[in-house]
Parts: sequence; structure tokens; C-alpha cells
Amino acid sequence: MIRVGIVGGSGYTGGELTRLLLQHPGVRVTQVTSGRHAGKPVSSRHPNLRKVCQLDFVSAARLEPADVLFLCLPHGQAIEQIDRFAALAPRLIDLSADFRLEDPAGYPRWYGREHSRPDLLGRFVYGIPERHREAMRSATWVSSAGCNATATILALAPLYDAGLVEPQATVVEAKVGSSEGGAEFSEATHHPERAGCVRSYQPTGHRHVGEMIQELSNGQPISIHFSATAVEMVRGVLVTCHAFLRDDLDEREIWRTYRAAYGTEPFIRLVKARDGIHRLPEPKLVTGTNYCDIGFDRDPHSRRLVVVAAIDNLMKGAAGQAVQAFNLMHGFDETTGLGFPGLHPI
Amino acid sequence: MIRVGIVGGSGYTGGELTRLLLQHPGVRVTQVTSGRHAGKPVSSRHPNLRKVCQLDFVSAARLEPADVLFLCLPHGQAIEQIDRFAALAPRLIDLSADFRLEDPAGYPRWYGREHSRPDLLGRFVYGIPERHREAMRSATWVSSAGCNATATILALAPLYDAGLVEPQATVVEAKVGSSEGGAEFSEATHHPERAGCVRSYQPTGHRHVGEMIQELSNGQPISIHFSATAVEMVRGVLVTCHAFLRDDLDEREIWRTYRAAYGTEPFIRLVKARDGIHRLPEPKLVTGTNYCDIGFDRDPHSRRLVVVAAIDNLMKGAAGQAVQAFNLMHGFDETTGLGFPGLHPI
Amino acid sequence: MIRVGIVGGSGYTGGELTRLLLQHPGVRVTQVTSGRHAGKPVSSRHPNLRKVCQLDFVSAARLEPADVLFLCLPHGQAIEQIDRFAALAPRLIDLSADFRLEDPAGYPRWYGREHSRPDLLGRFVYGIPERHREAMRSATWVSSAGCNATATILALAPLYDAGLVEPQATVVEAKVGSSEGGAEFSEATHHPERAGCVRSYQPTGHRHVGEMIQELSNGQPISIHFSATAVEMVRGVLVTCHAFLRDDLDEREIWRTYRAAYGTEPFIRLVKARDGIHRLPEPKLVTGTNYCDIGFDRDPHSRRLVVVAAIDNLMKGAAGQAVQAFNLMHGFDETTGLGFPGLHPI
Amino acid sequence: MIRVGIVGGSGYTGGELTRLLLQHPGVRVTQVTSGRHAGKPVSSRHPNLRKVCQLDFVSAARLEPADVLFLCLPHGQAIEQIDRFAALAPRLIDLSADFRLEDPAGYPRWYGREHSRPDLLGRFVYGIPERHREAMRSATWVSSAGCNATATILALAPLYDAGLVEPQATVVEAKVGSSEGGAEFSEATHHPERAGCVRSYQPTGHRHVGEMIQELSNGQPISIHFSATAVEMVRGVLVTCHAFLRDDLDEREIWRTYRAAYGTEPFIRLVKARDGIHRLPEPKLVTGTNYCDIGFDRDPHSRRLVVVAAIDNLMKGAAGQAVQAFNLMHGFDETTGLGFPGLHPI
Repeated sequence: MIRVGIVGGSGYTGGELTRLLLQHPGVRVTQVTSGRHAGKPVSSRHPNLRKVCQLDFVSAARLEPADVLFLCLPHGQAIEQIDRFAALAPRLIDLSADFRLEDPAGYPRWYGREHSRPDLLGRFVYGIPERHREAMRSATWVSSAGCNATATILALAPLYDAGLVEPQATVVEAKVGSSEGGAEFSEATHHPERAGCVRSYQPTGHRHVGEMIQELSNGQPISIHFSATAVEMVRGVLVTCHAFLRDDLDEREIWRTYRAAYGTEPFIRLVKARDGIHRLPEPKLVTGTNYCDIGFDRDPHSRRLVVVAAIDNLMKGAAGQAVQAFNLMHGFDETTGLGFPGLHPI
Repeated sequence: MIRVGIVGGSGYTGGELTRLLLQHPGVRVTQVTSGRHAGKPVSSRHPNLRKVCQLDFVSAARLEPADVLFLCLPHGQAIEQIDRFAALAPRLIDLSADFRLEDPAGYPRWYGREHSRPDLLGRFVYGIPERHREAMRSATWVSSAGCNATATILALAPLYDAGLVEPQATVVEAKVGSSEGGAEFSEATHHPERAGCVRSYQPTGHRHVGEMIQELSNGQPISIHFSATAVEMVRGVLVTCHAFLRDDLDEREIWRTYRAAYGTEPFIRLVKARDGIHRLPEPKLVTGTNYCDIGFDRDPHSRRLVVVAAIDNLMKGAAGQAVQAFNLMHGFDETTGLGFPGLHPI
Repeated sequence: MIRVGIVGGSGYTGGELTRLLLQHPGVRVTQVTSGRHAGKPVSSRHPNLRKVCQLDFVSAARLEPADVLFLCLPHGQAIEQIDRFAALAPRLIDLSADFRLEDPAGYPRWYGREHSRPDLLGRFVYGIPERHREAMRSATWVSSAGCNATATILALAPLYDAGLVEPQATVVEAKVGSSEGGAEFSEATHHPERAGCVRSYQPTGHRHVGEMIQELSNGQPISIHFSATAVEMVRGVLVTCHAFLRDDLDEREIWRTYRAAYGTEPFIRLVKARDGIHRLPEPKLVTGTNYCDIGFDRDPHSRRLVVVAAIDNLMKGAAGQAVQAFNLMHGFDETTGLGFPGLHPI
Repeated sequence: MIRVGIVGGSGYTGGELTRLLLQHPGVRVTQVTSGRHAGKPVSSRHPNLRKVCQLDFVSAARLEPADVLFLCLPHGQAIEQIDRFAALAPRLIDLSADFRLEDPAGYPRWYGREHSRPDLLGRFVYGIPERHREAMRSATWVSSAGCNATATILALAPLYDAGLVEPQATVVEAKVGSSEGGAEFSEATHHPERAGCVRSYQPTGHRHVGEMIQELSNGQPISIHFSATAVEMVRGVLVTCHAFLRDDLDEREIWRTYRAAYGTEPFIRLVKARDGIHRLPEPKLVTGTNYCDIGFDRDPHSRRLVVVAAIDNLMKGAAGQAVQAFNLMHGFDETTGLGFPGLHPI
């Protein structure tokens, strides 16, 4: 059994990791830390785990050695304590944004400050298994991808990798649920204000764009014109990507490109139904799952291709993706512990 | 492997059963029938099962012998075809209301018409495992309980069984989600009308009351004053039961009664947190699970005890309960295939 | 023009009052106070008032004399400053709970503490116009009713006044929206936790019960067994009242009682449609209005009568009711400024 | 008093028109027609109008002469009966799509069929008052604009009119509520399927694009790359427009352009708050109002300008816009009957 510690387990991502790893057949969760809730049952913060999880939170100071640590700390904290964590466990999976960009120059650009440990950036494998599977198998440190970045990269990679689209013209509109902001409450998350809202909360300048460019550029200058809008849902991201084809490809050719890229992927479902109401991906249909559903529509009047991708931001966009990486790192079948197919209706 | 056929698989309950049984380690789902959708992929109706279920619907006319049939037909249809189904499989689990009441006199009273096969009523075991576990182990026919009935019976049974409450004074208010009405659309389920509504759709005369009285009366005349209100959620039932204590019992005595009744039940969670926001059961926390969460609050100013119970109407209130019964009938561990602990947040 | 000051105008009730009074033809809103937001535009807190309200918040310390002050302070603050407010304006309308109970003994019972100014309790007219219209016409001080109390009292008063129901057996289940808790955010109102929830947040001991008993008792001992459940909506209260008839009255007799009580009321609508989906009151249909919609259903199997009433908690349950009182106090037509009929669909 | 007939009054747009015109001080609503509901009270379909509207629906066959007819028929029906309506009333306001495009060539392109009465197209004034105010003052026939078109045109017109943006590069993502589909129910609007969904229902080929191009092109070839996504709300449209500036204009210059275009418009609010949670337009804040709220954000890393506009699709996008046109046609103040400022919170 792999001994796993979850550092920063009182938030939503930590809760999901705890849930997944408790039911993973090759894992023993040894500790779940929380500064504020140390001593209380884990299930007091994650009531779905009543009767499922008997652990109490421990303070981070009491963190013990383990085979792997999952770091679910607020952005900026993993970087501070990374040496300590590295001393406690041979493998680290960081779910924060601290080590996602390989190029130190990206941090001032997208995060507004220098990176204090640029020496370590090259040691992390970027956490999307569909893009870095082989590197993960031998990786010791993995930096999990941002949720919006995951959906956008998976939606667009086949097009960018094959050089099919104008590299600087893509517009991406993400519709995101309220759990993306985490468990900390504020006026913006106060139910009367947030319920039923369609709020353009980050029309420009989203930090995840740095990751998108890193993964999609293939050495060429590209632009991803990204906007994020908060909508009424708790979990989920839907990205609508408007890409412009270089050549007048028809639907079958595009379809072939996606099949070539993802045909054998266990967690990517290519969705394109001719009829019915579920013709394209929808985030509510992947709630609780590790799937990324991808579909597209070809504008007959222009070179525009609309690619749509849906994920659960806490699963494929965070905890699920991290467990998928964990499986690869430790030689488990990649789908172990990630078999929940989702609910319908929901 | 137990060979299972699902009769009437295009509705919501049929979809949930398909999902659960496909992942059950002791089951092979051989057929899923649908009159209207025969020939189409099961996943065309249940898009969560894309990549998970490769079966196509078959017409009910082509139903083949199996070890067990789950009947998910609209109310009134199982009764018509019961002999045919009995000839095809030695075990039947009926999820409709057709055989829930043991006493033929209940049908005109609660359903407004005579029962056409009163000879068969005694052969069905009523489908709440927590109440009829031993009978189920040797049962061939099981009639699954109604969702509102399941929540109400589990909430109140310890009190009625122990004779602690005024038998005719209990008022039950159920708050139910929209999936309770099934997959058939109508003006009442049209999103602009149904969204955000709090609609008293069945203030009196609910059919499930017949089941409640059957299970709770213990041979005495009792009343359950039941009302159902539709609220904004897709899945879930919360019943708020106002029972009136015969004697001035304190909280600890009541607590002891519930522990005695349910302390070893795998799918009942007694919930009573002193602080935090999840002090009592909430339906959204049991979404997708087979749990029935139960808690209560003792009115210090009167003899009133408010018992609150939450279930997922499609799981513990339908498909999950039926799989639990199936496990008991076939000697599997009662929790097999029902391990999903639910999501937080959701 | 009546000069009106709104004290404590940054909360939801204050915002609604500002909206209503700005459009009232006989009113000039002279000041809207806020401690925290003094100096900022009123529309910065109430974005619906952009282009409608040009006022800035002033600090309460700068409050000037007016013809009437509406007090929208957090509970407990009006009582502290009542002498100062009384010196500034001849008429006061208090929307807090500070002066709702006439009997000082009610405060320790329902609020857990003694009332510090019992000498003033008799000077306030309780704020439900349908119950105290004549007293309001000559009132100088009015204490607006609680939202749950308003709906419950209006639903039950015809029955209690006519002595038709068992006085101690009534059970009331309120389903309430998130704005009832006000503009202060907390973990309980954090969108991922509050969205889609059905949460029994006050199963017993609700403070508004004191008001209900005061209004409904008519000198006799009565009980109102009240529970409140938070559901997914922002505005609105639906109370489902289970009352037990003393005699076996039929529907027409009950109907007659309600018509006699409310037939000429401008803001009460008796709802009982034979068909269609809107057969009983629904809170979403009164959103933004001052209506209280009331309907009922007679249980044919028992003496139970289920009375259902819907209001907008911020309107008929707070600001609208207060403006209705204001109109009566100042000789305006009772409906002035309250003509918005609500939206469908919504 | 202007005598007004509403043709096709049982749908959502007809209901809103009825509500607005009943409270319009210069209007007498003489008839509201409905084929299916003739003889029933108008309030049976529009329950918000109980106690407000005493009219019964009449069949369209019994339509009588009036000063103006509002046509709220399903698309394709006004065109069939236009001669009859013209004989009954000197002024017509059509809320369908039948006469929105001036150029007959637009119909096969955007609607997939030839227009059967191209002779009449030039007689209609396109119904956005902010664009065609003067023409409306003397118009006899007005064709109200589509809701998505209204929001997009108002958002982009200042930029296109001033020639500030690349004319072929604009991408528009509309997030729309469920009432946009009207009162007819279907599987797609069934609550369990539609609730909480984020569904890309029209990624390309939306019919409203024809109107957008007509209004924005100013004789030049332009493209509007439009997508529509259904989100969880009943009313409302939010369009997020990604336009690309020709020159490197700063925020002040763009601000100036919008102020010049809309500074005196009664129903356009330019929104750009520096802090707080309502920094950009949100559809829920304009619910029930005739406002179009517009704001923008300038991407510092590119030439992209993100313009965001919110309307209530049934008001500014349909009935409210039509009443605004009616006011202009009949010499009323443009804002008459449209003064509702909206609710907060909602």
C-alpha cells in the first residue's frame, strides 16, 4: 500500500482527494492536514465522508514521512515549504499554481511577481496525463494543471499540434461554477449575489493563459484570447473555443484529427450526437467524474471551428487529474479509483 | 455472474440501475429494454454512460430469460405482464407502485382503483432492506418502496416501533426534486415554470401514504399527515417529520432509540453535529449515494420532535435500494456496487 | 412631499425601501445612511438603482430631521437609539425585531434576553396592515412584522379568528430563500454550500413564533409548531400550514371564511385554480410584489386543512409592508408605490 | 387612450406585453388573443396578473379593430396574416422574426427559406429605438429585434459605427436563459435536463446574426462569429463580445466613444465599477427592466476589447423594446410604463 499524506485537506480539492484516495485499492491515507481544523474529524468539513472517513485533521506541523504527498495549499504556500515536503516524501504532487510554468519569465507576466525558486521549475512534470504520460511514469514531482487550462488545452491541442488553426486568433470563453473559487466565502460568493448570476469575472488577464500558451505553442508565437464567466453551477467548466482554420477542412477531417489524438484515451470522450438534446459536452454530465468530454461544430459560413469541452473542475480539473498522475507515477492502471461514471439526471 | 435484464430502461430509474449494475462485480447486464428507443444506444438516453455502456436498447418483445429482471415500467404495466416476466426469470424486482401494498383494500383507497391481481400481493417482499432484510434473503419477488415512503418510514420507524409518539398526530412535509416525476416532460416540468419554484404539488392525498401506514402502524390505527412540495433541485428528498412524543423524553433517550435501531446499518447515517453548517441531513450531500441520513431536533417548548431525513430519490429511493435488495437476495455483501460516498460540494 | 430618511440603507431591506420610496409620488428621500459605506453612491450597494438613485450614503451620525424615518438596522440597534430617532422625526417605522412583541415577557422567551425599554412596547402598532389598519392610520410608531410571521399570520388568521381549528395542533413548515438572512455573508451562505440546498436550519425555536402567537391567540392558549427550511431561491417564503379543523367543514365553508376575511384586501390574493400548474401560491410568482397569495387544500381523509401562503420576504415581508403602513399613516392610497404585479416567468 | 390589441397573448412575450400595457397610462388593452386558451382568463396563463388583469382570451378570429396591434405569434404566422392585421389597425408592432431583415436575400441565408412577402420588407422599421428613433416616430409598422441581436448590436454599434475594430474578427458568446425558447415545453426544457446546464445549443448558424450584420455593417463586409449557450437562468441574456481594435486605443478613448453614443439614452447604462462585485453588467440585475447594461474590459496584452452587455430577453429583448417603440410611435415619453428599476438581490 502506498502511504499518502494530503497537505491542506480542508478545502474542496483536498476533500475530493481524500474521497478518491480512501477508496483507491492501492493507497493508505495516513494523514490529512489542516491548520484551522486540526483535531476535528475530516468529515466535519466534508460531510459526504461521514461514515466513510474516520480520520481527524492533523496540523501541518505534525506531518510525517509518506510515500507521496499531495499538496493542496493556497497558491504561494507550496513554494515556501517545498524543501520540507521534499524531505518528507520522495514524490510530490502539487495542486497549486506554484510550479506550473516551466519558464521563470512566465511568473511576472501571469502572476505579477518573480518566482522565488526558479531552480526547481524544471523538476516538475506538468500535470496533464494526456500530454505528459511518459514523463509522468518516471516523475517524482508533478504540478497539476489549472482547471480552465486543462479544459482549454485538451480542447485545442489536436488543432494546435497539427497546425490546423490560425495560431493567434483563438477566442476561448469559459463558463465556470462556484467551487472554482474554493471554500473561502466572500461577498462575491454570498448566495443572494452569486445565485443565478452570469458574471464576467475575468474577461481578460486570466492566469491560466500562461499554462495554455506553454502547452499549445510548440515553439511558435500564439495567442489565446481567454475570458471567464461565472454561471449558476457548483462544479464544472465548459470552455467554448472559437478557432479559425487555416484551410477549409471539412468535419470529417477534423473528426479524424481528434480521433487520432484521443482515440485511446481512457478519460476523453469525443461527443457528437446527431440528435437528442445532449449533442455536445455539458459540465453537469461529467460531475464527479474524471472525464473531459470534447465536441465541436463547424461553422459552414466561415473558417470558424467551435470546440466545446466540459470537465468537473474539482475532478479532471484538480483531484481526479492528480490521482490519474499518481496512478501513472506508481504503476497502477491509469483509471484506478476513477471509475465513477457520473449521474443522469443531475 | 448473475444475468440481469432491465425492463424499461430509458427512464431515470432504469438509467441509474444500468449504471449501478454495469459496475457491479457479480452482474452481467444482458438486456436493457425500451419500447420507444429500441435499437439506439443506451447511452443516447443516459449520456453519462457514454464509453461506459456499449449496449443498445432492445424492444421488450425480445426480452430473454435471465436470472433476475428489474422492472422499471410506468405504474400499472408490471401488473399486466407479471406472468410473462415470471416465466422469464426466477427473481423479479419491481420498482413501480404495482405491488407495494399487501392489503388489496389499499389500492382503491390510495390509487383509486381495484388491484387486478390481489392473488400475488402476498408474494412480494416490501423493498426496504432495513425493515425486511431477513425476508429478502430468501425472497424471489421484491417490490421496491416509493421514494417519499422510504425516507418517511426510515425517519419514523424507530419512534413508531417503540411506541414513543402519538400515533395519529404526525405531520410530514417532503421537499422533492424534479427527477421524482420521471423523464416525461410536461408544462409542469418546463424549466421556466419549474426552475426556482417552491410548489405545493400534493398537499394531501399522496399515494405513498398507504405504504407509510403499512410499515409504521404495527397493527394500530395511525395517521401520517403528509404533504409534498416541489423545490429547486433535480435529485433528492428531504422529509421533515413533526412527531409528538407521548412522554417527555429528552434528547439522549431519543438518540439511544435511533442508535438501537440503526447503529449497524450500512446505509443509514445518524447526523447531529453541534456546530458547522451541516448539522442536519441535506439531500444534496447524499446525491448519487445509497445513504439515508437521519437527524432530529427536540423542541424545548413542547412535545414536538422534528425528525429530518434525506435520500437521493433515484438511489436509496429507487435504484440503489433495489440493488441493495438484489445483493441480499443473491448473497452478495449488501453494499456491493453501492460504495459511492457522494460529492462535496455539489 | 413627505421627507423620508432611511436609516441603515446598505442592506437588502434598506435597498428595497430606497427603490420603493424613490418612485413613490408623495415622497422625497432625503437621506440614506450607512456606517460602512458613507460617502459612496447608494447604487454601489444596490446596482439595480444605477441611473435611478443619485444619492450617496451618509453616516448615521449626520442624520437630519425628517417627517418619517424607516429603521433598517440590525436587530438590537434601534432599541439603543430610539430616543434619538424619535427626536429627529415624528414618525418611525422600525423594520427590526426590536419592538414587535407587546408583552415584555415575550423577549426572554423568544429572544433570550430582557427588553431594555419595556416602557415603549405599547407605543408601537404591529405592522401587518391587514390586521391593524385602523390603528395604523393614527399611529406614529410602527413595528414591521417578521417575514415568516407575516405569511403565517395571514394564512391562519381567518381560521383562528373564527375559532375553526384546534388551537394547539397547527404545524407550519416555512420554505425560505437566501435573502432572508440579509446581506452579511458567511460559510452558510457560501454559494457552493447554499446552492441547491434544502436545509432544515431552524426546525424548532424560531423567534417569529412569538409574533404569531401574539396575533393569533385571541386570548387563548395556542401553539404554532414552526419549522424553517432554507431552499434554493433568493427571495420568497412559502409557508405550508397544517391546521386541524374542529368540525368537519367542507371546502365551500372554508372558502367563505377566507373571502369574508380578505375579499376586499388589495394585497391578498386567494388562489385556488382547478387546473393548470399554478393551482396554489408560489413564491416566485410574487417576487418583487407586495402580494400575499393564499390558497388551501382540504384533506378528504382527515380533519386536516393545508393552507399555503407565499410572499416576497423583502417586500410583503419587509419593505413593501412598511411602505403599505407608511401609506396608511400618511393618508395615501394604501397601494401607492406598490403596483408592480410581478413577472412571469421568473 | 390608445386602443391596443395583443395578438398571440398566451406566450411569454404576450404576457409581458399585457402586463406592461395594462399599467401604461395612455393605453386601453381591448383584446388579448389565444387560439388554444380562448375563453379562459388571461391570468390563467400569466398568474402574476391575477387581480391585475380581468380580461379573458379571445380567439384570433374575433379580433376587432384597434389603434395598434402587437403581434406575438410564432415565427412565420404574422407573414401569413399581415394583410388582415393591417386592415384592422393602422399601426402594427411585430415581435416575431418575420420582417426583421430588410434584404430578401437574408431569409434564405439565415432562415433557410424565401420570404413570401418581400414587397413589405421595406415598410418595417427595425425595432431598436436607440438605432432608429427618428424613423420610429413616424413609423406605422415596426419589427421588433431579436433578443440576442439587441444585446449584441447595442454592445458593438459604437465600435462599428466609429470604425474602431477589425470588422471581420469579432467573436460573440451569448449566455441565455430558458425563457428565450418560449412557453412550449420539450425534452430540452424538461427541468431535470435543463436545470444547472451549460449547453452550447447553437454554436454556429444562429438566425439573429443576420440582424446583427444588417445593423453593424454600415455597407462594409463584416463578420460576427456568434455562439449561444444555455445557462441556468429563466430570464436574461449576457453577450460577451471579443472585438479587436484597429489601433491601440486606451480605455479612456473607448469610454469616450460609448459616452458619445449612449450618454443620453434613457435605457442604456454604462457600467464600469472599479471595485465591488458588480463591476460589469449582469443579467439578473436587469430582470424585469428595459435596461441594457453595457461595460467593457481592455486586454492589456493584446488588441482585444471585451464588451459585455446584459438585457432581460423578454423586456429590452422583446416586450419592453416594443413598448418603447410604441411610445415613440405615439408621442408618449419614451420611458412611459417602463420605469421598473429591477430588484436586488434577485
